[in-house]
Formats: sequence, C-alpha cells, structure tokens
Amino acid sequence: MIKAGIVGAGGYAGATLINILLRHPEVKIVWLMSEDAHKGKKIADLYPHLTGEIDLACQTLDDLDKNLDAVDLVFLALPHGIAINYVPKIIDAGKKVVDLGADYRFSDNKIFKQWYGIEHKTEKYLSQAVFGLPELFRSEIKKTKLIGNPGCYPTASILGAAPLVKNGLIELDSIIVDAKSGITGAGRGATLKTHYCERNEGLEAYAVTNHRHMGEIEYQLSRISGHQLNVTFVPHLAPMSRGILATIYAKAKQQVDDQALTALYKEFYKDEPFVKIFDDKAPNTKYVAGTNNCVIAVQYNECTGRIIVLSVIDNLVKGAAGQAVQNMNLICGFPETTGLKQITVFP
Amino acid sequence: MIKAGIVGAGGYAGATLINILLRHPEVKIVWLMSEDAHKGKKIADLYPHLTGEIDLACQTLDDLDKNLDAVDLVFLALPHGIAINYVPKIIDAGKKVVDLGADYRFSDNKIFKQWYGIEHKTEKYLSQAVFGLPELFRSEIKKTKLIGNPGCYPTASILGAAPLVKNGLIELDSIIVDAKSGITGAGRGATLKTHYCERNEGLEAYAVTNHRHMGEIEYQLSRISGHQLNVTFVPHLAPMSRGILATIYAKAKQQVDDQALTALYKEFYKDEPFVKIFDDKAPNTKYVAGTNNCVIAVQYNECTGRIIVLSVIDNLVKGAAGQAVQNMNLICGFPETTGLKQITVFP
Amino acid sequence: MIKAGIVGAGGYAGATLINILLRHPEVKIVWLMSEDAHKGKKIADLYPHLTGEIDLACQTLDDLDKNLDAVDLVFLALPHGIAINYVPKIIDAGKKVVDLGADYRFSDNKIFKQWYGIEHKTEKYLSQAVFGLPELFRSEIKKTKLIGNPGCYPTASILGAAPLVKNGLIELDSIIVDAKSGITGAGRGATLKTHYCERNEGLEAYAVTNHRHMGEIEYQLSRISGHQLNVTFVPHLAPMSRGILATIYAKAKQQVDDQALTALYKEFYKDEPFVKIFDDKAPNTKYVAGTNNCVIAVQYNECTGRIIVLSVIDNLVKGAAGQAVQNMNLICGFPETTGLKQITVFP
Amino acid sequence: MIKAGIVGAGGYAGATLINILLRHPEVKIVWLMSEDAHKGKKIADLYPHLTGEIDLACQTLDDLDKNLDAVDLVFLALPHGIAINYVPKIIDAGKKVVDLGADYRFSDNKIFKQWYGIEHKTEKYLSQAVFGLPELFRSEIKKTKLIGNPGCYPTASILGAAPLVKNGLIELDSIIVDAKSGITGAGRGATLKTHYCERNEGLEAYAVTNHRHMGEIEYQLSRISGHQLNVTFVPHLAPMSRGILATIYAKAKQQVDDQALTALYKEFYKDEPFVKIFDDKAPNTKYVAGTNNCVIAVQYNECTGRIIVLSVIDNLVKGAAGQAVQNMNLICGFPETTGLKQITVFP
Repeated sequence: MIKAGIVGAGGYAGATLINILLRHPEVKIVWLMSEDAHKGKKIADLYPHLTGEIDLACQTLDDLDKNLDAVDLVFLALPHGIAINYVPKIIDAGKKVVDLGADYRFSDNKIFKQWYGIEHKTEKYLSQAVFGLPELFRSEIKKTKLIGNPGCYPTASILGAAPLVKNGLIELDSIIVDAKSGITGAGRGATLKTHYCERNEGLEAYAVTNHRHMGEIEYQLSRISGHQLNVTFVPHLAPMSRGILATIYAKAKQQVDDQALTALYKEFYKDEPFVKIFDDKAPNTKYVAGTNNCVIAVQYNECTGRIIVLSVIDNLVKGAAGQAVQNMNLICGFPETTGLKQITVFP
Repeated sequence: MIKAGIVGAGGYAGATLINILLRHPEVKIVWLMSEDAHKGKKIADLYPHLTGEIDLACQTLDDLDKNLDAVDLVFLALPHGIAINYVPKIIDAGKKVVDLGADYRFSDNKIFKQWYGIEHKTEKYLSQAVFGLPELFRSEIKKTKLIGNPGCYPTASILGAAPLVKNGLIELDSIIVDAKSGITGAGRGATLKTHYCERNEGLEAYAVTNHRHMGEIEYQLSRISGHQLNVTFVPHLAPMSRGILATIYAKAKQQVDDQALTALYKEFYKDEPFVKIFDDKAPNTKYVAGTNNCVIAVQYNECTGRIIVLSVIDNLVKGAAGQAVQNMNLICGFPETTGLKQITVFP
Repeated sequence: MIKAGIVGAGGYAGATLINILLRHPEVKIVWLMSEDAHKGKKIADLYPHLTGEIDLACQTLDDLDKNLDAVDLVFLALPHGIAINYVPKIIDAGKKVVDLGADYRFSDNKIFKQWYGIEHKTEKYLSQAVFGLPELFRSEIKKTKLIGNPGCYPTASILGAAPLVKNGLIELDSIIVDAKSGITGAGRGATLKTHYCERNEGLEAYAVTNHRHMGEIEYQLSRISGHQLNVTFVPHLAPMSRGILATIYAKAKQQVDDQALTALYKEFYKDEPFVKIFDDKAPNTKYVAGTNNCVIAVQYNECTGRIIVLSVIDNLVKGAAGQAVQNMNLICGFPETTGLKQITVFP
Repeated sequence: MIKAGIVGAGGYAGATLINILLRHPEVKIVWLMSEDAHKGKKIADLYPHLTGEIDLACQTLDDLDKNLDAVDLVFLALPHGIAINYVPKIIDAGKKVVDLGADYRFSDNKIFKQWYGIEHKTEKYLSQAVFGLPELFRSEIKKTKLIGNPGCYPTASILGAAPLVKNGLIELDSIIVDAKSGITGAGRGATLKTHYCERNEGLEAYAVTNHRHMGEIEYQLSRISGHQLNVTFVPHLAPMSRGILATIYAKAKQQVDDQALTALYKEFYKDEPFVKIFDDKAPNTKYVAGTNNCVIAVQYNECTGRIIVLSVIDNLVKGAAGQAVQNMNLICGFPETTGLKQITVFP
C-alpha cells in the first residue's frame, strides 16, 4: 500500500486517475492539487459523479512542499513546461513521479526544445526519465523513479506501428498516421473548440502539419527502428467524448498478406495483458472505452502495397491515466494489471 | 462461489450482466443462452468488447434442461410472456431465479393480465415471486428464490416518489412522471426506432398514455401508499445511449420547503448504499452511467404547491442488470454491494 | 425591399437571422453588430459556414448612432436589460425594432421587474411593444413598430397550451410544462455547461423552480385565459444542438378523448401556416429542425383525467430568429411566410 | 418547368431529393416509387417532416411503365444492379435519367464488372452515360440524357485530389484517402451497423481494402491524370448523421508550400459555384451540412514531402441528391445553381 498525490486533479486525466485509484487495492490518494480557481473546492463539487466516493478538497502547487512528506508517489497531469519546475524537488525528496505531461517524454533535450520551445536547464533529471510505454520499454521502466507518460496519440500510434518498424517490414519514410480523437482530448477547458454545438455533428482536422505529438511519435519510432524517421501525422476531432482511432498507412517493403501480418502482431504482443489483436473484426473505439486496452487490426492492400493498421485506445485511460497507473504498478513492484481490469461499459 | 446461467445474453441487459458478473468474486458464469439466430456464436463475436474476457458460445432455451444441473441460479432477460414457461421448471429444480422481464413483477395475476394480455396459469410460482426493489422490499427479497426484477422506468420513478408516498406528503392522484430514457432502453433490435440517424438530434415522447411501465409504477406505489392510485406517465426517447431521468411532479398536501424535503429523502435512504441525495446539484444521467446508483434531488415550487423530484439511474444497471445482481447478492447471502462498486467512467 | 441591421450577430440567434435573411427576397442586411471582442471581425470568420455568403464585419453598439440612418428595421439579439437602453433611440429615429430579448415581452413593468430585477424607466416605449406570437396576437402585431419576440420555451409552451386555456377545457392551476431543450438554447458562450463532454450522453434539469421563462409563460397564458394563473415549469438540457419539446400536462375539467382534442387543435390553428397538428405520429424535434414550424399533438389519459400536449419547435427558428422574421414580415407588410418556407434537412 | 419522378424515394437520398425539388422553381415531382414494403404509403408517413409539404404516396417499379409518359426526367436512387434493368426503357421513351446508383458511373463495362460483379448486357446505353461531376466534366454532361451520378466518397475525394492529379504535382501511386462518413451513408435500413447505441461514441474503419468507391475514385482519377493509378482508400464511420471528410495524402514531386497550393486550388475552382477553398480555417463537415458545397483546404508537410488535402461535403447533398439536381439543371438547361442555394443550418 502506497500513498499518492495527484497534481492536476481537476482535469479529465486527473479525474480519471481518481476513478482508477479509488478502486486500486495498493494505493491511497492522500491529496489533490489543481489550478488556483479550484483551491479549497471539494473534488466532488467539480465532479459530482464522485460524490460519496472521495472527500478531498483541492490544494494548489503552492502547497506542494508541505505535502510532499505524506506521499510515496506523485502523479503530475499538467500542461507542458510546468512539471519541469517541480519534478527535481519531488525526486530529490525521494519520491517517485509519473508525469502525464510532455516534459519527460524526450530524453533528448534538443528535440524537446524543438517541439515545445522550452528546455530542461539540467539534464540530471531528464536522464533518469523513462518513456512509459510498458509494451516496448518495460525493463527500463522498472528501474526508474521518473516516468514520462506517453501522449494519447503517440500511445495508439506507436503501439500500432511498432511491430512493422521493429521488424523492418516497411519503408520508414512512408508512415502516415491519420488519427481521430474524442473531445476529452481537448481537455475540460471551455472554449469554442469544446462547445457542444460547435463539435456535435462535425468532424475536422487540426494542427495538420505541426501537432506536437508528431514529434513524440517520430522520436520514439526512430528509437525503435534504430533510424531517424519522419511521420506524416494528422489529428482530427470527432464528435464523441472518448477514444482515439489511429489509422496507420505504411508501404510494405515486399508483398505480404493479412494473415501473416496478423500473426506477426499476435506474436509481437503475445505476453501483453492490455493489447488485443483482432483478426476479422474492426476495432471500434467503443470496444476500449473506460479500459486500459489497445485493440489493433492490420490489413494489406495488395494493389497499392500499403499496410493499414487500425489501433484504438481510450485516450484518457491507456492514453493517459490508465497507462500512468500501469507505470506506477511497474515502478512500485505491483502486478502490472492491478486496478486496471475494467471491462468496457458497452454500449 | 455460485454458478450462474444467463438466458437472453445477446441483449443489452444480458451483456451488462456478463460485464458485472465477470468481475464478481462470488459468481462464475457457466452458460449463456440467447435467441436462435445466435446459437453457437461466441458471445465475444456478438460483443467484441468481450474478446479475451469470456469464451462461452450461446445456446438456446432448447438447451435449458440439460444445463440446469450445472447452475445454482438463472438470470432471465427475456421479452415478457416467455419466462412464465420456464420459471416453474427452474424453481422445481431447486434453482434460484432473477427474472429481468415483467412476468413476475405483479403479485396480482389480474393486473398482470390487464397490462400484458397474458396470464399465469398457476399462482403457485407467482406467489413466491418478490418485486426486487431492495430499497423498499429488502426483507421479502431475502426470503425468496424468485425475483421479479423491476423495470427501468419503475426503478427510477418508484425510488423517486416513494418517500413522498410513504410519508403521505402528497395528493395521491396528482403524480405525474415525465421520464426520459436513452436508446438502450429500446433494446439491441435494429428498427427504424433505434436507427442512429432517426434518433440523433431528436427527442420525442412515445406510448403517451399506455406504456406498460405505467402499470408497474401504479401497482407498486399503490402497495407502498396503501391506497389504489393512478399515475400519469409519459416516456420519452432522448438522443443518448444510456440513462433515465424521471422528473416527477406531485401536489404537496401542505406547504413545504426544499431543505425539509431534502432532509426527508436523506433520512429515508440513509442506509442505502446505492441511493444518493443531492442538495444543490442537478442529478445528471451522466453521473450514474455504468453504476448501480440512483441519484435523487427534490425541490418545491411554492407558487404552484408542487414538489418536483429528479431521479436518475443507468437503465441497464440499476434499471436492469445491476439491480439483478444486487438481488442475487441478497438471495444468495452475499454482501449487497458485492461486484457493484463501479465508479462512473466520466465523461 | 427594406434594409435591416442585426445587433447581437455573433450569437446563435443572430447567426440564424443572417441565414434566413440572406435568402429573404425583401430584406438586405446592411450592418452587423456584436460584442466588443468581435469588433472588426468578419462574420464569416466567426461563422465559417457563411464564407462566400456575406462580407460584413462586426461593429459594436457604440457604432449604433452613425448606422441608424442606413436601416429601416433593427433586430436586437441581446442579453436582457441591454435593449432597454437602445430601443428608445431606434424608435425615435422612426425605425422598426424586433427585439429577440426579454425586455419588451411584458407589457406590465412590475412583472418584468419581478422576474428580471430591472425596470423600464419610462412606460412610453413599453406601451408600444407587442408580444410577437403571431398565432395569438397577429392583429396587434401588425399595428406596432416594436416587437418583443417571445422566448423559445414560451413559444413552444404557449402554442401548445393556448387551445386548452382559451377554450376553458382545463383547470387553470393544473398546468405543468416539462420542457427539453437542445444546447444552442444555452448560447454560444463557452462554459462548463456548454462543454461537449459535459453535455454529451447526459440529461439534466436546471432552474427547476425559477426559470425566467416561467414568468413569461404564466403572463401570456394569463392574458389568454383572462385569469391569473401559475405554471409549474421545469426546463431540461438534452444532448442535442437544436430543438425544444414541451410536454404539457393539464387536468381536464371533464372527460374528453384524443379525437375531439385533436380536432379542436386543428380548428384552432387551421389558418396558421407554421403550426401543424399531428394525429397519430409523435412530434419529434427533428421534424422541425431548421424550420419555423411548430408541430403539436394532444392526447388524453382517461385514468388520470390529464391532457398531455406535445409541442416541438426549433428553438433558434420559431423560438427566436424565424419568429423574428415572421414578425418583421407582419410589421413590414410582407406576406407572413416570406423567407420562411424551409424544409427540415432530414435526417 | 419539367416533371420528374423519383425511384427510391424511401431512402435518404430519395428523401433529400424530395426536399430539394419541392423548392426548385423549375421542377414538379409527379410520382414517387419505393420498395414493395412502402407501396401505397404516403411519403409523409415514411418521413413525417414532409407532412403538409407533399401529398404523394409511393408506388413501386412495377408501376413504371404506366407512369413514364407523365415525366420528363427520372431520378433513380437504387442499390447497384437494378437501374441497369430500367434505364434502357426510360431512355428509349425519350426521357432523361439521373441515376444516383453505381450502374452508370463506369464507362468501361469490364471495370464495372470487376467491382460490382455484374455487367451491362449492351453497351448501347452505357456509352451515352456521363459521370456527373460537373466541376470536371461539365461539357460532356450538358450533351447527354443519362447521368451516372457520382458516389459520395468519390465526390469528396476526386474534387480534393483533382487539382494535384491534373497538374502533375504528385507521385500518382502515392495517393491515400482516409475518409470519414456520417451514418446516413449506410442508408435507412435498420441493422446493427446503423443502430444508435452501436454507433454512438464509436469510430471504426470498414471495408479497409475493398470498398467499391475505391474503384470509382481510381477510375476517375486515372481518366483525369491520363495514367492508370491505384489509390489506397479507407472509409470510416463517424458518430454523426451527415457529412464526409476526406483527408487525402499524396507525395509531392517537388517541394511546394501552403500558399502556392492554396492559390492553385483557388485558380482550379475559380468559376465553380459549389467549391470553396479555405485559406486558414479547417473545413468542418458542419460547414456544408444541408448544402451542395464542397469545402477544401490544402497544406504541405515539408518534413515528409506530403501534401494533405481536406475535403468536406454533405454526403446526401453534394454526395448524392444535390449533385443529382445540379446535373439535372445542366441537362435541362436551367442555371446550374437553381434550387441549390441553401445555407447550412448552423449549428
């Protein structure tokens, strides 16, 4: 049993962490922090569905110092560039950190700066950080105290593309990721972009050539392949609350077929509790809602020589809070699936 | 640990039962039955989100005899009029039954016939049946082996109105229930009524003066009040998958106020694990999705002397499968909340 | 051909006015005004669907004086309490006004103050204002230059209840309106209340005992009946963009039947181009989306003696901009349906 | 003024034709035909939003002979393979035909057979048919009496890709179309695939390597380019009623930039009334709902050398009925935009 604090509890990722941790047998949430506007508010007033489940009120990051002793691990769910200022203190206090933001996802400071416009002043902490995608980097994760939890699009995209990249099956400069996300991906902030009537019955692409997750996908797939590669990544907002579908296109180096590809994926992920490979059913974002699962299917278009991978996750679970808990389980020595066996509430 | 069979596994209530029971520590699902068209099909082919969770294929009711020995309890999720033909056999075999259909919700055969057009040929089994609304009939439930699990609208409506009716606060002929349901309430059958494009962005009432749940609400509220009463009940279909909101109107016998009413409701349900009374927040169907909870708020319009009760449930959980498991827990001697502590996946 | 200006063009009612007027053969939009934040912005930048349709940029109310000469009529779509400050000037300049806000819906200053907390300093202009519900007050409308355009809920509710009230068929203190609205009713402002993920898959009541439209419904139904009456009115937000369904309950003074009621409604509205009475189909909000129509059906519950009226409109058209144009047609002498013959884009 | 008949009036494309034609100043609908199950039913009973707008009942194709004299032009909205059997008779009777199905979209009988498994027995009529995409084939369209109206996905895809293909800017084997459609694309038939609860909050790909519209896109783009080319086409179903967004990826032959590409598109479509090129706003399917417009934007990813085109249409209007009316206007000599100037009902 460990004690955990959550910074950024007022956002959707934070609220999803609360949901999962309240039923996790090895964790007790001891405090919550959120933005200044939430200071002193009960989390159940911000999220009425939590009424009767948790009685904590929100503090702010100003209260971090005095609360650090009380916890073994801190979850950070913050906009990029903020965690940098707090992680050193938390690590120095001997606590573990799972950072759901972008600050510790790149071990290369230059590339982080290129995409986010800021830089780590010291590489001391950066060098300890591990990209928390357990299916690909489990052994490193187990050894660290500082996790850079992957972004939502990168989780779906990298899990979808990794078997092709790692096995050298595709032309590396041919990868295109056409990703579709539910609107929780835009956060709980109220803007015209998240207004019900502006989103309902509408579909659009955004950040067509410059979404920051493109950098994360490229960086990690380059690590996996051993070669520097670029990816064409176009995100879309779909009229639904949850879920990401990444449709991945890549040119096969030589002719393959659906069965062989599917077998390859099944072999690649055969020991993974959270990855399911579908043979002949289409992965639908509905099938993973509320779960830490990633469902993948793969097909080959023989006329064009292109492999098409379909990869779905729940952006708030496997794409954020669930994967954070999976990483926490790993760095704390709990069985990896503890607290993460939810079944989709369908439909 | 008991063994259970599910009849009607292919419908949404059946699938929700599977979801809940797969994580229930005291139950093992040993067989599934569904309609003829599903015979031999894996349930995970009908519901791909169950892939990897359960490996059973569907049988049909023709296979009931040979499968009865294998179970301790049978869940029936069938259209009305069918359970009647199978319940005697199951009870005679010494098994317990939770019937999610309408056949055993009325202890009075005449009233059942009046609303459903069929009748129980023998009252032998009917007399054993208990209306499975634990918040109101828990002690009777614990003594029986045959549960008539309440309908979805009646669950929300009766829980919402009971404190007023039982305490004699309202004019009994003044009750109006304006109920709004998600589309899972119409079942998984594909008709124009359940077609996405016909329902999306649309709201309509149906069965304005003759919905069968009106009979169930009247019958049970009459029992609770000790007087025969009639209810105006109008159901509506709202463009969402899950949830019921019952807005209940009743004329107060004398002036009251919001605080006193709320206190009364809190007292009435003070020991109930699945009923929450909100003070100053509006119950939203989203707050109970995927849970066995009923959230209620109550207000008083002093200009018109009318009490307004807002009662929300998830129609497939507290309105069907969750309540069925709650009843199973009671008749099997398990703690009542076993397997039912889900937190809403919000948003 | 007249020239019109629109104040409040940036909101949904304003944008709907633009849509309708751009195809109206007798009107030319000559200027638009909106909030300060929109100053200088092209309306097609605020509403990209208008690209290529209209080239005007937004001014603000500070620019009213210098723009007044250029128009014959001004539409005001403003939060309550603001129109009061500008209407005298516009009227004094000899221009016509259709005010979509609440300021001129009550001819009684005291009742306006009671519900809105402000008052008209002079009754000079108030006494000219006519409540713009043409189906009930057409002859008065034709004689005025100042229209208080009805609210959305009142339009659906009053049209639904008027035949009962006017014909003395119901007990006047028995009227309950359970109204459900799409989210455009909450405006284009981005708040947690209009956030996609907070509204999607959720249904809730709000302002249960004190919505200002209750006052408007009571005031106008009292005028129609000739007696002071109170109404229980509970609005709900449904997960859809457009549409209002008002489900109206009232106690019949004596037994009636569905056919007689339906015939009465058909007779009552027999000359109305925008009101349709359904016999045996349920009015769905989808059937009127994008149109100026109101569809009504009426039924009788003989067990409880209650009449149930179902009344649907598009809240932005018949509930706002469409009715405003209908009123404009009347006060400008155009045929009443000019520019308003849209057919629902279904589905 | 011409007289038209509609075959397949009961489907969504048929209903959309009715909507448009009822307000078209040059057309009178004189009869409707639909499937056997609709025989004798009023169209307003199948589509209650048409109540009061049209009083025709449905006949069936058995009634074609006796009705042919009454019309100048027939719209056919039928599943593929059926129009083949009726078009010769209609053409021989001297009538014009706009076929919304697939039967006359391929001038090459072999390719039609390859994708649809059936063949035209005689090429006599096929050779008269013109692919009805006016923006690319207007002059041919004007000369014929038989239009093969394009499919929905092909309309969005071909309009989006044509400027690149025709100007030789891209590697022809690099085209990928990731298309997302609303659920009206699946028709009004009630199946599990169109069930509200199965589609809501879900996104999935389908027919990943073999959708028939892939053949149509390839065939027409090959005509435009003058070279045989293949396209990777993956359609998706998004949780919304209407709209298609085609996200098109292609490898540029040489480096370009966003401005030059946008200018090229504007030039290419400069005389087209229904094509709008956006500079810096994302085309959203909402912006074209209910209209005959196609909105396109184009960007260049300089790291990967890929051009990304975003093309949106309303699948039932520009993707079906609206384009059919546009073609009708052309072959009947009416101004091309007659009856097609709808503005999106937003939001």
